[in-house]
Amino acid sequence: MESKEISRAVIKRLPRYYRYLGELLESGVERISSNELSDRMQVTASQIRQDLNNFGGFGQQGYGYNVKHLHAEIGKILGLDKMYHMIIIGAGNLGQALANYAQFEKWGFKVTGIFDVNPVLRGVSVRNVPIRMVEELPEYLKENETHIAALTLPKEHAREMAELVVANGVKAIWNFAHTDLKLPDDVVVESVHLSESLMQLSYNMSNYKKTGKNHSKQKKSF
Amino acid sequence: MESKEISRAVIKRLPRYYRYLGELLESGVERISSNELSDRMQVTASQIRQDLNNFGGFGQQGYGYNVKHLHAEIGKILGLDKMYHMIIIGAGNLGQALANYAQFEKWGFKVTGIFDVNPVLRGVSVRNVPIRMVEELPEYLKENETHIAALTLPKEHAREMAELVVANGVKAIWNFAHTDLKLPDDVVVESVHLSESLMQLSYNMSNYKKTGKNHSKQKKSF
Repeated sequence: MESKEISRAVIKRLPRYYRYLGELLESGVERISSNELSDRMQVTASQIRQDLNNFGGFGQQGYGYNVKHLHAEIGKILGLDKMYHMIIIGAGNLGQALANYAQFEKWGFKVTGIFDVNPVLRGVSVRNVPIRMVEELPEYLKENETHIAALTLPKEHAREMAELVVANGVKAIWNFAHTDLKLPDDVVVESVHLSESLMQLSYNMSNYKKTGKNHSKQKKSF
Repeated sequence: MESKEISRAVIKRLPRYYRYLGELLESGVERISSNELSDRMQVTASQIRQDLNNFGGFGQQGYGYNVKHLHAEIGKILGLDKMYHMIIIGAGNLGQALANYAQFEKWGFKVTGIFDVNPVLRGVSVRNVPIRMVEELPEYLKENETHIAALTLPKEHAREMAELVVANGVKAIWNFAHTDLKLPDDVVVESVHLSESLMQLSYNMSNYKKTGKNHSKQKKSF
């Protein structure tokens, strides 16, 4: 399949397609039309067809899309056919929640290390991965190929930790700390700002009260 | 201030402005120009001016924006001048992470209840809020005004719980379960799909390898 560059807007939608197709696959559904998918995803059917056209002729008129095939192709585009090693920095509730989430491994993300500063946690295992102290990070990174560092620690120390892991070869950061990071151009960063999500919820609640319009509900063409 | 309707795209950007202005306020910065804000936020200065123009003449030529005033105005638009009561359903690591996050209260979101099905957790307090069993939910909701329910439980039970709280008067859902919810039109839903965030990271890593372009880095005009 020709890897022409796909627009950012489409890329942002792919994980959601992947998730829905995964659920259909699990339910044993073999094929689905754009209209059926539209109903399930609350996205217009024309948007779906437009988006999926980016990946070549997956759909067949009268047949719809083959779920397994489409799921696999989108998975490849998302890079989920590889196995990434991920460390978690900050073994508080959020870090442990991530470490405990067994599904990540199913998508090719294996938690291989967990780090913290609290000596009480040293050696405590989360799903067979022992918690280490951050002082051990440079040596750990020298000896263990690590693709992603998830930052689930207070924002005051997030930048310092991000810089440390990047200096030791990590090229991707999954950032949960409530601060933006300034890192070299070859480091990929994905931030999850729970605060912003909550504020979005607050705005939608406020706006619904004032205008009767529910922005979280409209059938999206994204 | 006239409450004309602001575009969805601008609304999505507001929480980030709010966060940055909050940090500037904490650092004692009184005023800031769109260029300075542009450098900090990695957003084009013209986008910033365009966005903030939606809220009337906040900026003054030669002066820039008054940080405190702008922060307060955006806070009002986001509905952060109110105090919302939020319950958490699912007292695992993620639910406890949310319950422990003291900042929410600063923005006007008070965790007033936590619920789970595991009897071992009954009565355990998280920041002075005792964990209750989900059987107590209907009665709790009758007696305690609750604005938001955060769902941090396995997806198999998320819909059921969402429907239960909505049937008992809750009008906003903060959904962390990896499934979409189908709820009445007057219920506001904000979903946090960690899986999709991770897939976005994976795509950006994959794409960077192939094309040398880092989609997570480009100076955004959003």
